[in-house]
Amino acid sequence: MTVQAKPNSVTTGPIIGSQKIYSAPVGHPDILVPFRQVMLHPTAKEPPLQLYDTSGPYTESGVQIDLDAGLPQPRAKWLAGRDFTGSTGRIVTAADNGFTPVDKLVPLCPAPHKILVGQHGNPVTQYEFAKAGIVTEEMIYVAHRENLGRHQAHAQAAAFRADGEDFDAAIPDFVTPEFVRSEIAAGRAIIPANINHPELEPVIIGRNFLVKINANIGNSAVTSGAAEEVEKLVWAIRWGADTVMDLSTGRNIHNIRSWIMRNAPVPIGTVPIYQALEKVGGEADKLDWEVFKDTLIEQAEQGVDYFTIHAGVRLGYIPLTANRVTGIVSRGGSIMAHWCLSRHRESFLYEHFGDICDIMRKYDVSFSLGDGLRPGSNADANDAAQFAELETLGELTKVAWEKGCQVMIEGPGHVPMHKIKANMDKQLKVCHEAPFYTLGPLTTDIAPGYDHITSAIGAAMIGWFGTAMLCYVTPKEHLGLPNREDVKHGVITYKLAAHAADLAKGHPTARLRDDAVSRARFEFRWEDQFNLGLDPDTARNFHDETLPKEAHKTAHFCSMCGPKFCSMKISHDIRDEAHRVAGLVAQREAFKEAGGQIYIPAADAAE
Amino acid sequence: MTVQAKPNSVTTGPIIGSQKIYSAPVGHPDILVPFRQVMLHPTAKEPPLQLYDTSGPYTESGVQIDLDAGLPQPRAKWLAGRDFTGSTGRIVTAADNGFTPVDKLVPLCPAPHKILVGQHGNPVTQYEFAKAGIVTEEMIYVAHRENLGRHQAHAQAAAFRADGEDFDAAIPDFVTPEFVRSEIAAGRAIIPANINHPELEPVIIGRNFLVKINANIGNSAVTSGAAEEVEKLVWAIRWGADTVMDLSTGRNIHNIRSWIMRNAPVPIGTVPIYQALEKVGGEADKLDWEVFKDTLIEQAEQGVDYFTIHAGVRLGYIPLTANRVTGIVSRGGSIMAHWCLSRHRESFLYEHFGDICDIMRKYDVSFSLGDGLRPGSNADANDAAQFAELETLGELTKVAWEKGCQVMIEGPGHVPMHKIKANMDKQLKVCHEAPFYTLGPLTTDIAPGYDHITSAIGAAMIGWFGTAMLCYVTPKEHLGLPNREDVKHGVITYKLAAHAADLAKGHPTARLRDDAVSRARFEFRWEDQFNLGLDPDTARNFHDETLPKEAHKTAHFCSMCGPKFCSMKISHDIRDEAHRVAGLVAQREAFKEAGGQIYIPAADAAE
Repeated sequence: MTVQAKPNSVTTGPIIGSQKIYSAPVGHPDILVPFRQVMLHPTAKEPPLQLYDTSGPYTESGVQIDLDAGLPQPRAKWLAGRDFTGSTGRIVTAADNGFTPVDKLVPLCPAPHKILVGQHGNPVTQYEFAKAGIVTEEMIYVAHRENLGRHQAHAQAAAFRADGEDFDAAIPDFVTPEFVRSEIAAGRAIIPANINHPELEPVIIGRNFLVKINANIGNSAVTSGAAEEVEKLVWAIRWGADTVMDLSTGRNIHNIRSWIMRNAPVPIGTVPIYQALEKVGGEADKLDWEVFKDTLIEQAEQGVDYFTIHAGVRLGYIPLTANRVTGIVSRGGSIMAHWCLSRHRESFLYEHFGDICDIMRKYDVSFSLGDGLRPGSNADANDAAQFAELETLGELTKVAWEKGCQVMIEGPGHVPMHKIKANMDKQLKVCHEAPFYTLGPLTTDIAPGYDHITSAIGAAMIGWFGTAMLCYVTPKEHLGLPNREDVKHGVITYKLAAHAADLAKGHPTARLRDDAVSRARFEFRWEDQFNLGLDPDTARNFHDETLPKEAHKTAHFCSMCGPKFCSMKISHDIRDEAHRVAGLVAQREAFKEAGGQIYIPAADAAE
Repeated sequence: MTVQAKPNSVTTGPIIGSQKIYSAPVGHPDILVPFRQVMLHPTAKEPPLQLYDTSGPYTESGVQIDLDAGLPQPRAKWLAGRDFTGSTGRIVTAADNGFTPVDKLVPLCPAPHKILVGQHGNPVTQYEFAKAGIVTEEMIYVAHRENLGRHQAHAQAAAFRADGEDFDAAIPDFVTPEFVRSEIAAGRAIIPANINHPELEPVIIGRNFLVKINANIGNSAVTSGAAEEVEKLVWAIRWGADTVMDLSTGRNIHNIRSWIMRNAPVPIGTVPIYQALEKVGGEADKLDWEVFKDTLIEQAEQGVDYFTIHAGVRLGYIPLTANRVTGIVSRGGSIMAHWCLSRHRESFLYEHFGDICDIMRKYDVSFSLGDGLRPGSNADANDAAQFAELETLGELTKVAWEKGCQVMIEGPGHVPMHKIKANMDKQLKVCHEAPFYTLGPLTTDIAPGYDHITSAIGAAMIGWFGTAMLCYVTPKEHLGLPNREDVKHGVITYKLAAHAADLAKGHPTARLRDDAVSRARFEFRWEDQFNLGLDPDTARNFHDETLPKEAHKTAHFCSMCGPKFCSMKISHDIRDEAHRVAGLVAQREAFKEAGGQIYIPAADAAE
């Protein structure tokens, strides 16, 4: 095990072929929302394509990143205008860092961090603002972001309402701040945004918005340190992770998190029970409400945006897992099951759920109600244990809303295709349309090493059916801790799954990017095809393996079919031929022989 | 361009952890069907898991492969019993090898090859035998293969009828030769099996059987030679390709094919128009019926098992593609469209379709009716051109059946998720339930470099809906010719998609493998988990990246969570605890507090 010193470098600079821009919603010149523009070849005769951008300041051109100083704080001014009080915060203890010996201690991130606490009576959470009819800056921000920076007039002019099947979602052509507010007030969407995370670029999670993806990072007891984790964060958001969960366990957990939080432009989620367990020496039966409560406050003060809380793992449900093929596979779920069973007591998370809400509300930490009893194999999918817990999560959702908190619900896991929709339908019903946040699901168990793919199938489907955020799975799932390359592979795989879901739902802007790629492909604008894709570097490298010369970047073929067999080239010849024929009106009749089939006049055909 | 000499070595030997076996159906000791058995750790207390095996003699232990001699001929004896006549065959011309100069000519495979031709009046094709009520050896073979070697009594004892949604398919618990015959007679399934391919291990393609996958190989004008192509074949079937299409173009095409055919245990498909085009110097408008007919006979004599024939690209449909974003993207389709348009004539493939049937029947070459107008982008999915052609393919299916031929139908392509099912439903209807054979479909266009995944999503779904065979897509799709690693990646990806489809359809044996993996996972039998998966080598390498020691192969954790956080380890502790509690009857009452939730007695819980 190597614990590394403080992080000192991360990947910066634009994605090749793109530039970062910031755009303000009409009437809000101070609210600057980031986008990525893909620059196209002049022959394209198209404006740059504007893309949603999760990568933060790291992809600005010529950016200087100082991890010690932390990121700029777009939310600081907004938060300053709200009724919060300052706090000196709790004292950091040796337990917070897993009792790391001093010589192995990663230093705390020195970026200045003022701790804020919300008050009773005044709105603190986005849910409370929404319920009070107040549109926050975060809501204005995410509306502009979801519109890809388009203004209403522009959106209505440019939009085609793509066909799609949205299963009774209510996706608008243009997202207004008021629509955002109403969705949050209804509990159908959340903006995970701790008031102690001013560096955040807000993002909305809900089924009437673009499908989001989460990437997990985190050291485990056997590998990796601080530098690696911060770079994994920056790397994951570079390729499109909308949120990042820090699932660290082991030593230095508090201090590594300080580096992550101060340098994270995306919402950060954690599973506080992991750290609580470290504080009691890894023995689950020593956990109690006090150590858990202390951990919630510690992490909330640091700025964590959402907590996975496994409060649905009730004592009475544990025996329902006894005959499963793979038992309990959620780490948090198994810890809590162990606690309940060894003490023969109801879960302290369940019993203290109201107290947990009170703490989380004060900082606007969103709930991600954990699915501690999710199936770990296709054999266990949709069983009594899983659905009993889901019903409890629905019950807890109402409690959290009453307390003013934002809530999303975690879902499985491992589910064969024919059982996926039942998960979504049941979740919508019993959890009152709170956003669903699923891991995969994996649609078969026979492909260790390829579970990013077995799960992308399920993820695309459940995203289509209504899941708001998809937790990625990397090729290393079930086998080991993902490295940098695995993180990228997982993120790209989930981006394409989320986008496939947006397309199928008929999201009004989704097809713009597909069509831009397809036009580039048909017009042999190879560089544009690479740059418009999710991973320009890999696409370019694959192409260049067999045709490395610059001249081939405008060639009207690739090595797959070669010049004589390129169907797209022949298609162009056909259009040219059709065009030539257009002048020969007499010949047009000859085309009509084809048994009553429609023949489009060649003048149109040549377009 | 490098043209290599004759192939001299290929990958041989068992997949790690497995052994090849041959098993005979009851009452047919001469019919030896290959399977792969995965050997499990003694602690598993399970028999070896028997798997479908496409890899041919290459994976026998200690096998000696002599490519010059060709493979053993399991079908030779069966074919000898039928009423065929010998033929000296047509004369191979310089055109057959693309006019390759003598010094660059790959030699012909010297394996002995007697050419057979079927007669009028007597059954030749599997379809004709089936219609005549005759069960062939091929039918007996594939029945045993589909059952994974189980006998009827054993199958009924062991089978659980897995839940599933099969969309009105009719998947039996146990496949009998008579069921195979009836499915072939109904046109719902085919066994592509040219009478000149005695080396074949027969395979059945139909929606009431296991979903199959095809891998494409083939040199293009800019890269690769004979040795590479034979190794790609062997490599593709090693990882599970059920059929292989040789899409070669360019020089040496006839002679390279001779090496492939004599060393292929799987059905080989081709697109004869590619070679025909080479014979006329690459100029589509010089194609005619005579050169095409000559090519059909040439390839049929060599033993090709199925031909893609783009006879549905009719003159009148071409203008329907004029306003598409990506025009015509099928190579064969674009060649024929070019021919039709430049001559202002109906397709000679359509006009000579009856003649084509007569030739293909004589050798039992199956039709794969090509979708020359398939969409090349999500924008063009399910459009008028695509569906007009599909209806024509349905009309041609009936003609081919009347002529005694076996038929399957090719399908798209690029289709967003919400438009996939309409493809399957329409194909079943207009093509009279002839097996569907689709390329993907890709569910989004934004991920060049990852199109094996964008398409695996669509492939798994359309396989579930009823597609009988899935044509793989590699990571290099749209970018370049796949290499060996890409072929493996494509095959594994499609195997998992096909298997996910089998699971969702409720195929009675499909879940056996998933459950075996899950049990191995839960019991920390790491080697078993690797070996039961689709790619033991990759799974093992991923695991060993962080935990390389032999001792870690039995460790009750991996580097993902580390020892303290392994949920499966905790699950075992929970079961142990539950077991301990079982003796303390008095304590049982304490568990009942959980608000009316079911509590399973701990004695059951500990199982």
